[in-house]
This record gives sequence, structure tokens and C-alpha cells, in this order.
Amino acid sequence: MKTICTVKAMAAWSAAHQREGVTIGLVPTMGALHAGHRALIRAARLSCDAVVVSLFVNPIQFGPTEDLSRYPRQLKADVALCKKEGVDVLFVPSASQIYPGGFQTMVIVPGIARRWEGARRPGHFAGVATVVTKLFAMVRPTAAFFGQKDFQQSALVKRLAEELNLGAKVIVYPTVREADGLAMSSRNVYLSKKQRTAAPALFQALQAGRAAIRTGVRSGAAIQKTMHAVVKREKMATVDYLAVCDPDTLQPLSRIRDRAVLLGAIRLGNVRLIDNLLVTC
Amino acid sequence: MKTICTVKAMAAWSAAHQREGVTIGLVPTMGALHAGHRALIRAARLSCDAVVVSLFVNPIQFGPTEDLSRYPRQLKADVALCKKEGVDVLFVPSASQIYPGGFQTMVIVPGIARRWEGARRPGHFAGVATVVTKLFAMVRPTAAFFGQKDFQQSALVKRLAEELNLGAKVIVYPTVREADGLAMSSRNVYLSKKQRTAAPALFQALQAGRAAIRTGVRSGAAIQKTMHAVVKREKMATVDYLAVCDPDTLQPLSRIRDRAVLLGAIRLGNVRLIDNLLVTC
Repeated sequence: MKTICTVKAMAAWSAAHQREGVTIGLVPTMGALHAGHRALIRAARLSCDAVVVSLFVNPIQFGPTEDLSRYPRQLKADVALCKKEGVDVLFVPSASQIYPGGFQTMVIVPGIARRWEGARRPGHFAGVATVVTKLFAMVRPTAAFFGQKDFQQSALVKRLAEELNLGAKVIVYPTVREADGLAMSSRNVYLSKKQRTAAPALFQALQAGRAAIRTGVRSGAAIQKTMHAVVKREKMATVDYLAVCDPDTLQPLSRIRDRAVLLGAIRLGNVRLIDNLLVTC
Repeated sequence: MKTICTVKAMAAWSAAHQREGVTIGLVPTMGALHAGHRALIRAARLSCDAVVVSLFVNPIQFGPTEDLSRYPRQLKADVALCKKEGVDVLFVPSASQIYPGGFQTMVIVPGIARRWEGARRPGHFAGVATVVTKLFAMVRPTAAFFGQKDFQQSALVKRLAEELNLGAKVIVYPTVREADGLAMSSRNVYLSKKQRTAAPALFQALQAGRAAIRTGVRSGAAIQKTMHAVVKREKMATVDYLAVCDPDTLQPLSRIRDRAVLLGAIRLGNVRLIDNLLVTC
């Protein structure tokens, strides 16, 4: 496995391999790799000639009061996982490589970013859109792999890759879960033992919403109510939002026609969890 | 010469040629080609294996009260000029090819766009930055050629190409002028005969500013005053702005150290002209 630390070397590696007709799969990560990332790497491995994993804790997607400084970092374990999974290139740039002094260009996707995570985390999605555009431009992947857990993020990435003609296929891979349903996330390490026990409430709420849809409920409000009731049973949890949305636009649906995404965010003390379920009627 | 009308075909052409190691020069235009564009095409021809000219009147860079509908269009003459100059591909997409329904992704370069043209034309530079990013992503040029006449635009394009890692060299080619100094522009056709006679006042003002710098004047205010005095002599003309700026940041300079760009915009009736001069001390 090759480790690359500069933008120039990354772009040169990609250009050289593209000239050879090599298809490149990119798995963009912020490190602290878990089974969800591993599934993305394996999906990339299966469909592309070469796999690039980027590991960059992107400062501009964190708000001033968010967890940038304490975001889990475990480079050694990440390197070991990538090696074991047959990753070809681990791209680990510094912040000043990605954002040299005076950096000002931003990519925005205002419609998709407006609600949910975007409303609660101002600037977050502009930070995501900008770093993804840069990574796609320098790596020029044939396909890039994202986890469904960050549903709004993957909808945004799909949209910007199409709209900016970045030429990369965006593959959204199903959420990998713990045995009790909790979605894998690097941030799960923030949970105390007690909070960890309460954490599956979010997935349970989404499942209850899906069950309601399967029994024929179509009203967004009714499904929301069902989901809220499940989280309410868990004393430690407070709902940030539980929503029934169009999977492409992320706009709330008052009535489901054929497809919906159930989006949820809850708080357990200082820890915030998100999750989602895609439902087809 | 090949004419391409779809984004897909354009991207496919570029990918195929890139795999062959062909260097691609891109000249992005809004058509109504003149000697300034011809100079850009020839510069591209000299330094690249293949030349792509894009011809797209980009709707999103026009304000609601601007001249989108009456912007000069002369496809036949443009095709003839491109053929004569040995252009390999003329890329002429429709607006719906570039901006399919629901389009929302935008690229912004807030620092460079803040003043001058950006302040007078809200949204203009976001429109320019977005279309340039898209063109660079689909054509993947080795180098792209812009005229210095739109100085702020070329500074913005340089910046975004670097900051988004688009991998294209941005070449800014000196302004081509009429015999009396008027900068070539597709919009010069808007000038009445009387206005055309008055139009060189802008270039004369910039020249007076440069002459002052060459005699040792370093105060931005003093140079501005000199430039204003020249435009004032022309009864038909009103100054929109005449400024002494840092060529990289476009911020006004109170004192010149080693380099400056003199930026100007004047109005002759309903016609607005811009021009600039780069000065090294």
C-alpha cells in the first residue's frame, strides 16, 4: 500500500493510472475506520481496479462549537485496516495541503443542504461539498463510495457530482449496524455505557415508522407520531428531528406515494446520533 | 472540426483523448467571436495538441435586468472562424444540457467576487465560477485560455482552478485592442457611432494612471484622481469605478508597492464598458 500526503502526488498518481485505463474507486473518510468503512472499501475493491482511501478530518465541515478537536483519531489502526483490505493508496493530506492560506472557493448545494443536518449545522454541507469536489477533482475516481448512514450527505454528493459533471459514479452503500441495530459511526465512541444501551432507540423508531408504512399508513404526520412515540419510551433520549422525506430532494412529505426516507436525529446527553431508513411502498 | 452538443459526448471525447496522452487547450467563450478570441485560440493551438472552443451564453451569469436576450449571437460566423483557426472541437451545448431541471449546485469565490464587477452584478461571478468548474470538469483541459480584458474574471478562474484542484493551467492572454485602444469585446456592437468615438476614453484613463505610476506616483487616491480627470473630459461618459488594486486579491491599494492592476468601468448611455491595465513598478 502506498501512502500519499500531498495533493500534487495524489493527482499525479491518478493521472498516471488513468492513462493506463485503470478504474479508480475512492472511499473518502475522516478516519477512525469501522466495519461500515470496511464494507465501502470492499465494495470499491469488487468493482474497481484500484482503491484509494482518503483519510482527512475536514475542518471546514465542523462548526465552531462542534467536535473537531476531539474527533476520534487512530491512524495506526486505520493504516492496518487499509493494508489488510488491499487498499492501493491511502491519501492522508494535511489541512494546509487541502486548504492553503487564503482559501476561499466554496461549493454549495443549497436545496439539499437547507433542512435537517444542514439547518442544525450551518456551513457543514458547504464544507462537505467543497472537500468532496476537491477530492473528486484530484483523484478523478471512476466511482466513489459513501455510507447510507449519512443519507443527506450522500444525496448531496450524488447531486453535486452530477451537476458539476465530475464524472464519478456515486455509490451509496447500505448502513452497517451493530447487533442491536445501532448504526456504525466513528462518533459512537462518545457514548457512555448507559447512553450506549439507550442508543438503539433511534433505529427502533425508524423501524416502527417503516412498519407503519408497510401496514398501509401514508400520512407523513402519522408516521412521525409513531416514530416519536418510540423515542419517548427511552428516558435518556431527546428527539432532534424525525422526518418523512422525499429521498431525492429531502423535502418533507405530507403523504407518501411510492418512496420515502425516514430521517432521524436524537440526543443522548451531549452525544448526537443520526440514522435513516429508505422505504419503498 | 467536430461539433459537439451534449455534455456526455464532450466528456467522452476528452476522456478518449486524454487516454492517448493528448494535451487539450480549452477556450471558453460566449460566442460572438472577435480578434480577442482568435488570439486565445491561437495561443491554445501553439501550446496544446488539441483545441476545444466552448460556445455557451451562460444564462446564470446574467442578472435579471441584464442583456442575456440581446447578447450578440452569430453562430455561422463563429463556426467559420473556428474552422479557419484549426479548432478541433466546437462545443455548443444547450442551456438544458448544462443546467438540467432542478439544478442547484453553485461554486462561489467570495473574496475575489466581492468588489467591482461582483458588487455591480450580484450573482454574476457565482454564475461564471459554476460554469467554468463544469466546463473544466467535463473537458479536463491541460490549459484554459482567458482574456485579460475581464481581469477580475480571470483572477477568479485562476483561483478556483487552483483551490478546487481542477488540474488545468489557466492562461491569461493580453487584451486585444482596436487601433484607437478600445478593448475588443462582443458587447462593443451595442455602441452607437457617437458612443464608439467616446469609448477609448476608458483606455486613455487607464493609460494616464499607468503614466502617473511610471513617473513615480504611488498613492492609490492620486492615481484614481488622474484617471477620473481623463474620463471627465469625455462629456458622454460617466465613471462606474476606476480603481487601483492588488492583482491577486482585487483589494484596493492605498499605496502601490511593486504591482497593481488599474480597473475601470464606464457607461456610455446604456452601454457599459470595462477595461484594465496591469502595472509593475
